[in-house]
Amino acid sequence: MTEPKLAISELLHGGDYNPDQWLDYPGVIDQDFKLMKTAQANTVTVGVFSWGSLEPSEGQYNFGWLDNIFDRVEVQHGHVILATPSGAKPRWLAEKYPEVLRTDEFGHKLLYGGRHNHCFTSPVYREKVQQINRLLAERYGQRESLILWHISNELGGECHCELCQAAFRQWLQHKYQTLAALNAAWWTTFWGHQITSWEQVHSPSPLGDTNLKGLNIDWRRFVTDQTIDYFEDEVQPLRELTSNIPITTNFMTDTADMIPFHGLDYRKFAEHLDVISWDSYPAWANDYETTAELGMKVALINDYYRSLKQQNFLIMESSPSRVNWHPDNRAKRPGMHQLASLQNIAGGSDSMLYFQWRQSRGASEMFHGSVIEHRGGDQTRTFKEVAEVGQDLANLQEIIGSQPVKAKVAIIFDFDNMCALDDAEAYSQTTKKYWQTIQQQYTYFWRHDIPVDVISPADKLDDYQVVIDPMHFMMATEFADKLAAYVKNGGHLVGTYISGVVNESALAHLNNAPQSFETVYGIQPIETDVMYPSQRNTIVWGDKKYQVYDYAERIERTTAQELACYQSDFYQNSSAITINQFGTGQAYYLACRTEQKFLNQFYDYLAHLLDLFPDKSIVKNSADISIQIRQKDQTQYIFVMNFSDQKKNIELVEALPNILTGKIISAGNYELEPYSVLVLRK
Amino acid sequence: MTEPKLAISELLHGGDYNPDQWLDYPGVIDQDFKLMKTAQANTVTVGVFSWGSLEPSEGQYNFGWLDNIFDRVEVQHGHVILATPSGAKPRWLAEKYPEVLRTDEFGHKLLYGGRHNHCFTSPVYREKVQQINRLLAERYGQRESLILWHISNELGGECHCELCQAAFRQWLQHKYQTLAALNAAWWTTFWGHQITSWEQVHSPSPLGDTNLKGLNIDWRRFVTDQTIDYFEDEVQPLRELTSNIPITTNFMTDTADMIPFHGLDYRKFAEHLDVISWDSYPAWANDYETTAELGMKVALINDYYRSLKQQNFLIMESSPSRVNWHPDNRAKRPGMHQLASLQNIAGGSDSMLYFQWRQSRGASEMFHGSVIEHRGGDQTRTFKEVAEVGQDLANLQEIIGSQPVKAKVAIIFDFDNMCALDDAEAYSQTTKKYWQTIQQQYTYFWRHDIPVDVISPADKLDDYQVVIDPMHFMMATEFADKLAAYVKNGGHLVGTYISGVVNESALAHLNNAPQSFETVYGIQPIETDVMYPSQRNTIVWGDKKYQVYDYAERIERTTAQELACYQSDFYQNSSAITINQFGTGQAYYLACRTEQKFLNQFYDYLAHLLDLFPDKSIVKNSADISIQIRQKDQTQYIFVMNFSDQKKNIELVEALPNILTGKIISAGNYELEPYSVLVLRK
Amino acid sequence: MTEPKLAISELLHGGDYNPDQWLDYPGVIDQDFKLMKTAQANTVTVGVFSWGSLEPSEGQYNFGWLDNIFDRVEVQHGHVILATPSGAKPRWLAEKYPEVLRTDEFGHKLLYGGRHNHCFTSPVYREKVQQINRLLAERYGQRESLILWHISNELGGECHCELCQAAFRQWLQHKYQTLAALNAAWWTTFWGHQITSWEQVHSPSPLGDTNLKGLNIDWRRFVTDQTIDYFEDEVQPLRELTSNIPITTNFMTDTADMIPFHGLDYRKFAEHLDVISWDSYPAWANDYETTAELGMKVALINDYYRSLKQQNFLIMESSPSRVNWHPDNRAKRPGMHQLASLQNIAGGSDSMLYFQWRQSRGASEMFHGSVIEHRGGDQTRTFKEVAEVGQDLANLQEIIGSQPVKAKVAIIFDFDNMCALDDAEAYSQTTKKYWQTIQQQYTYFWRHDIPVDVISPADKLDDYQVVIDPMHFMMATEFADKLAAYVKNGGHLVGTYISGVVNESALAHLNNAPQSFETVYGIQPIETDVMYPSQRNTIVWGDKKYQVYDYAERIERTTAQELACYQSDFYQNSSAITINQFGTGQAYYLACRTEQKFLNQFYDYLAHLLDLFPDKSIVKNSADISIQIRQKDQTQYIFVMNFSDQKKNIELVEALPNILTGKIISAGNYELEPYSVLVLRK
Repeated sequence: MTEPKLAISELLHGGDYNPDQWLDYPGVIDQDFKLMKTAQANTVTVGVFSWGSLEPSEGQYNFGWLDNIFDRVEVQHGHVILATPSGAKPRWLAEKYPEVLRTDEFGHKLLYGGRHNHCFTSPVYREKVQQINRLLAERYGQRESLILWHISNELGGECHCELCQAAFRQWLQHKYQTLAALNAAWWTTFWGHQITSWEQVHSPSPLGDTNLKGLNIDWRRFVTDQTIDYFEDEVQPLRELTSNIPITTNFMTDTADMIPFHGLDYRKFAEHLDVISWDSYPAWANDYETTAELGMKVALINDYYRSLKQQNFLIMESSPSRVNWHPDNRAKRPGMHQLASLQNIAGGSDSMLYFQWRQSRGASEMFHGSVIEHRGGDQTRTFKEVAEVGQDLANLQEIIGSQPVKAKVAIIFDFDNMCALDDAEAYSQTTKKYWQTIQQQYTYFWRHDIPVDVISPADKLDDYQVVIDPMHFMMATEFADKLAAYVKNGGHLVGTYISGVVNESALAHLNNAPQSFETVYGIQPIETDVMYPSQRNTIVWGDKKYQVYDYAERIERTTAQELACYQSDFYQNSSAITINQFGTGQAYYLACRTEQKFLNQFYDYLAHLLDLFPDKSIVKNSADISIQIRQKDQTQYIFVMNFSDQKKNIELVEALPNILTGKIISAGNYELEPYSVLVLRK
Repeated sequence: MTEPKLAISELLHGGDYNPDQWLDYPGVIDQDFKLMKTAQANTVTVGVFSWGSLEPSEGQYNFGWLDNIFDRVEVQHGHVILATPSGAKPRWLAEKYPEVLRTDEFGHKLLYGGRHNHCFTSPVYREKVQQINRLLAERYGQRESLILWHISNELGGECHCELCQAAFRQWLQHKYQTLAALNAAWWTTFWGHQITSWEQVHSPSPLGDTNLKGLNIDWRRFVTDQTIDYFEDEVQPLRELTSNIPITTNFMTDTADMIPFHGLDYRKFAEHLDVISWDSYPAWANDYETTAELGMKVALINDYYRSLKQQNFLIMESSPSRVNWHPDNRAKRPGMHQLASLQNIAGGSDSMLYFQWRQSRGASEMFHGSVIEHRGGDQTRTFKEVAEVGQDLANLQEIIGSQPVKAKVAIIFDFDNMCALDDAEAYSQTTKKYWQTIQQQYTYFWRHDIPVDVISPADKLDDYQVVIDPMHFMMATEFADKLAAYVKNGGHLVGTYISGVVNESALAHLNNAPQSFETVYGIQPIETDVMYPSQRNTIVWGDKKYQVYDYAERIERTTAQELACYQSDFYQNSSAITINQFGTGQAYYLACRTEQKFLNQFYDYLAHLLDLFPDKSIVKNSADISIQIRQKDQTQYIFVMNFSDQKKNIELVEALPNILTGKIISAGNYELEPYSVLVLRK
Repeated sequence: MTEPKLAISELLHGGDYNPDQWLDYPGVIDQDFKLMKTAQANTVTVGVFSWGSLEPSEGQYNFGWLDNIFDRVEVQHGHVILATPSGAKPRWLAEKYPEVLRTDEFGHKLLYGGRHNHCFTSPVYREKVQQINRLLAERYGQRESLILWHISNELGGECHCELCQAAFRQWLQHKYQTLAALNAAWWTTFWGHQITSWEQVHSPSPLGDTNLKGLNIDWRRFVTDQTIDYFEDEVQPLRELTSNIPITTNFMTDTADMIPFHGLDYRKFAEHLDVISWDSYPAWANDYETTAELGMKVALINDYYRSLKQQNFLIMESSPSRVNWHPDNRAKRPGMHQLASLQNIAGGSDSMLYFQWRQSRGASEMFHGSVIEHRGGDQTRTFKEVAEVGQDLANLQEIIGSQPVKAKVAIIFDFDNMCALDDAEAYSQTTKKYWQTIQQQYTYFWRHDIPVDVISPADKLDDYQVVIDPMHFMMATEFADKLAAYVKNGGHLVGTYISGVVNESALAHLNNAPQSFETVYGIQPIETDVMYPSQRNTIVWGDKKYQVYDYAERIERTTAQELACYQSDFYQNSSAITINQFGTGQAYYLACRTEQKFLNQFYDYLAHLLDLFPDKSIVKNSADISIQIRQKDQTQYIFVMNFSDQKKNIELVEALPNILTGKIISAGNYELEPYSVLVLRK
């Protein structure tokens, strides 16, 4: 069976639409569709929270209103993304079948409420979900407007009920076969925690085991696998009845700070999706970072989700203005919505979709930003800026089919490593910062417009000139071998402190394993100096000093050469930054956490050495300007984005048309307005 | 039935007295009564925690000790405030009838302990309370010393047991009649939360729904109504048997910062009381504000409780020294007790009562400040200062019957609005500060000795020259109409940012509703700029600049005139402060939160415009001096209070007698000692 | 029956050893024993977590691996400390007998997990523990290498199950005999909490009573008594079968800040042990204090544990490098391990034992510092420094039998007082700091190398020249009499603010009791000024000013003379520091908390007055150098320790041999390397 592809001829604009809220409000839905036209919104995501409206009581269905929405969309030649409604079960379902409610880690059976509060294991829940999904597929599967299935909503969370305990035990039996193997992997002999019957296994709980590292990591893996297992049950009728319609589910980030979601291994999950989509809610206009710094963080997440399948993705949700769940919910400043939207397009999105089209009148998200607000209809700043983005996306129609240019640089990110590092009772509780360390590495490349992929240890390395593998605490021996093979064949590898410490079972590598890790870097880690927050060391590289904080590893060089050494403490003069020639490639080891300035210098050296810079038609005068290129055949679409609230200059080497306006921008100096964007065709 | 009035011929001095603790300590009760005489304490509140002493086992009563206390009081011609003992049930009651124990929001049945741990719905509890109350009324109802019933103690808290769930469902059925109406009001269609049977309703719980705004506000209302329902059961035998004895219960504030209690809507509750009383525990002598600033906060609460029934109130509890539950429990400095006591009298209290007369020897409040401490008897600073206040109150006997002079200014405070604003997932989580915004408005008036009422939307507006209505987020359309009518007829209205947003069901007003809100102010709110904590804007008024923080609303003027505009950001030059002529009145709109300095300037302008200043017999040289006037017929009692630890000057326009000393203070300059008070008769 | 003594001819070096983790790893145990030899490790503590290995299923035993460890130790002429395995029960035990699992204060039955999760009351648990202990005693009791029983591990925690409730009720019945006595002691009349049947008693719980002071302190006492009761059951078979083998259990401190464990009254517990041992985990090399400051804190704990039985103790656990549970887990700097080890020896330890010999490969403590780390074998800095300490201890063999010289100064520390003060709802929540106040007093003595005992109110006072009794909030009348008798007979007593407030039932002393307290100090406490954190007062002593913060007591002198008085606030010029001649002794009263500088001056005055300084063979130039002396017959072993990371000078009055090196150090100046130590024989 070939994977169905998303077939679109225009960039998607629109978003979550919950008209079942407004059935008693005459004229509202008419106005919604009128304003969609005004704002050139061509797409609605419907049904996300509609189970209660579609099946008001068990086996009683009401599809009329949804039929009507399909009809209206099709009159306007729009697109429908149809959601399965399992993200918010109806109240009657929980009342009649309490097994569908989750049990928390304390063993409390939850009450009905919120959204993600259903046991993914429950046979009843799976059966009921399949029923409603089958009906949706039968009824709407052949509608011409249907372009995509949106499965459930922001899947996540976990359940500790007896059904889940049983499933977890089965999962472990399948993985380990014998209790002896399980005990060995979890190192249960320590503290005398040997498991002598499968029934003794219990999920991690504050009332029981919280510190058995093997249990913890396996539970995280089980949660992903069980969620996927549930997901595959959900999509079964859709695959059966609508095999041509691709399937997605909307991924998340964890905070306003753009940290990957900690609940699920999206890399595994991505294999079950036809299209990646995600919900983007950065805290623009905050008081703790510049817009460009936050722009970098968003770009990194775009690259992460784009890399999952090495294909374009969708922004499934975003706010045209503000959210309602940040500590401080500030709206985008004028122009920021255009910039944020086009940044996503530049980064590989083929859509700009909102949560939600019309603001709810009540309940939990009533103040979440929406296209149509409680007051003002089409007269609000939000609506006008959305309409401008609608026009922009229309102007960009020709870029359909283009993709971000291929990256020569990859950064490794591994979900298991993130979990294991978070769980490690060592180092400092406050400074591990795995993703922030990835952000630190990424910063140089973003500022210099060098494309980067964010890949997993399971991905192929050979196509990259540079692979960066920061804080790879949990590293399988096989992966160390893979790194070595990559460098041997000419690759350039950058690794850091706190790497190669435990294996895939969260057991410490013993002696000098993994061997390839030491060989490829030509060093041996000796000990990690964990600094208290105010403590510092220093390194010197070239003629400049750089501060070292949080972690400083003492290493011994075997075959590596020293690039920089520590300036103080008992390991003064020992190596801090090294390079190792290995085969036809080179491996760099950054043994300590440094200030950003050093990384900028270091990667600048590497970028010049390897000529990583993309073809330069444009000279920019500020790191606040980001240039990202999408390519289709021989045509390049160059997005020039000013992330500053100041005017900034660029210089065009040749005259190029700005397809947002249709006007040609002549060679020479050009002044970019604050937060403004050019899309140049070349 | 006419409401019984509190009939007193002297100011009440004394307080909570728990002699059942000391029955085994010979001489202690004798000394208590001797020292009451010394300190001119004429009132004891007895029985507050005495259920266990009065009914040591079910149906076995022991009233002897209480008879004796009544006898002793009457020998000294004192007064008794008799408490019903329901605030602390006996242990045997909980053991025998577990239904009387509360269930918390997690569904845990609580154990016996603490004080407020009884289900207000429990039929058993209500029956047992009525039994003991009836016996008290029968036995003591005709005692000459009995002047007031004190019902239970500091009522508050909530219960989530099945009895309460059932009562809540009944309350909702009565309010909404149909599930359709309930679903519409709670906007349950969003997230598909439709309620399809009454049995599905459950109180808000972290295990279930926490974010259904309509459920949350209705639950808060139910808690008030159910507590009142319980209260009416409690007082039934008292009303029946002692119809001439007035009834109170002691109200609270939430913190050392003088924030209104969040647990109950006291405005509703007040209608069930004959006399308002409250427990005042400010954190005098702290290190984060001046005494005058805290004095302002106390004065505001006095005005709030005085306004509830537009009559004098009682201070039912206070500490002569310190409490035991502040983070830092510092005692009043010398003189502060006199100042604090007379501030309350000046603000409308007819009492100064303490918790408690004698310090407990053990258990939870053993270190709470009391008149008689563990050591020192009548030789402590505390006792001596209490005795001085006793003398002061005796000297003030003639003011009985006087009341604070009528206010021309009212500030609106609404319990539902406070709950709804707290619950709104929007704006900033840390800066809503509804009551603090009221305090900000109030500050000018307090510093300039201008009387203020704190009223509710249900109150009459017409008698006021100025009505201030800050942050009225939840505003019924009817109330907007009332505001408009008030201004049309010549009133002066001041409103602020974040007003008129939701209706009484916590549903957003749609389009430009409530219409009267926009008409009366002559503006339309466009969007609210929610600032991060360190962000600022500026306005200019007159020739002075003022900082803007937290919230800056963009508005469009329809009929209003601009008084000040923003100085920066994208809404630079748009209106920030406006005035609207409407009918024969004026409405001012403060679209942003400003520093205090602006409010002082603004209200100074208004106060001069409307000549709000009270008759000025006294010129003061410092905002730390507060002047409050009580009036009886043509006589004014002018309380001049120095809230500073420095000497301060005032100037008397005419010579006036200080009734605290009986001496006449001549016209001209007079130097007030730190924390000292004059009470001048005019 | 005489108490068996620990019979050793050399200082113990080694530590916790868990070889059952490595039975499947050929060669590991061989290497362990080889490296023990290298590091001169002569002692292993085995079996601590081995129940699951020794009894893999109920009644099925596997002692072979442990036999082998004994054999191997004996081949190397080493010592075994054999642990009873009750600190970590096997999973099958919890599965089969759920009663052995604890119930928490919320009534949750815990799941299996962690370590200390067994009910100390459970008859089943006690029976199963006795069974396995008996088998261990039978099998290993006569092994020549067995020198000590290590009972369970770091005993602590509490259980609220019904078995424990019943045991608590019995304990109370035994203590109080009647409910009347219980109610009187707990002062239950307040809040009407009278207990009318023993079944109503329940342990303190957030769901019930948390504030009944008498209940709280009795619960703390019960927890200690019940733990001891359990302990006596545990050791019964050992006492019976191996009456010559002494018994210990390892004590703890609560935090990286060296605060005594709050869970148990070790003073009571010590009476049931033959040898005191404790686990020492200071946070060396942190960023908030100097090494010398932390050294002082460790020395104080050494003195505390040494004083418990007035005999040498063992360091049962320590880390050769870092731990894994501090917020920041930094390793000791080079040299620090030697210094830390010898500080313990100097302070009275006859061992330096580690947790653990080899780092676990997985599970919760896999990153806790160990002698043999995951990488590097004997090549790590840690191993090398451990081996150096092994050599040091071997060089010190002759000090076996020596003890720290007898102290003339005692500080009183009382567990009940700590609990009662923590529980007092008064003063300030953040500044009570009982132990920190003890540290403050101790600082002067540590800096001047004056030996100090840390004793309890139950101990004899007469042998001390100075007794310091800080913040003795809960003080029995009998103890006040004891203090008075001590001073009357010539003792020197120093007391402070917040003393003599409540009696042993946590009931306030009434009137001027305890009488002897006032008599001995010649003062009466009047009131305690509790300051907010930023508030200050000042005292002057001599010609110097000192800051006062947190607490300033107003006192009245009866017979005392004033040494210093307050400089500001309303109690300006009243006495702050006093001296009272009483009998042939003197009592000093420090009425306020001062900066350290004052205490240094004050104790310097006292030390000179009483000539407390030990014989001075050495003049040191820095407070960072600590000198501690162990004595055997006429020989003194003088430990000279540099707690600074700088070189420091001392001056020897006479030439003395350094037994660490065997070299003689000549009289005159000598330069100590950073963190270095001399052990001089005199």
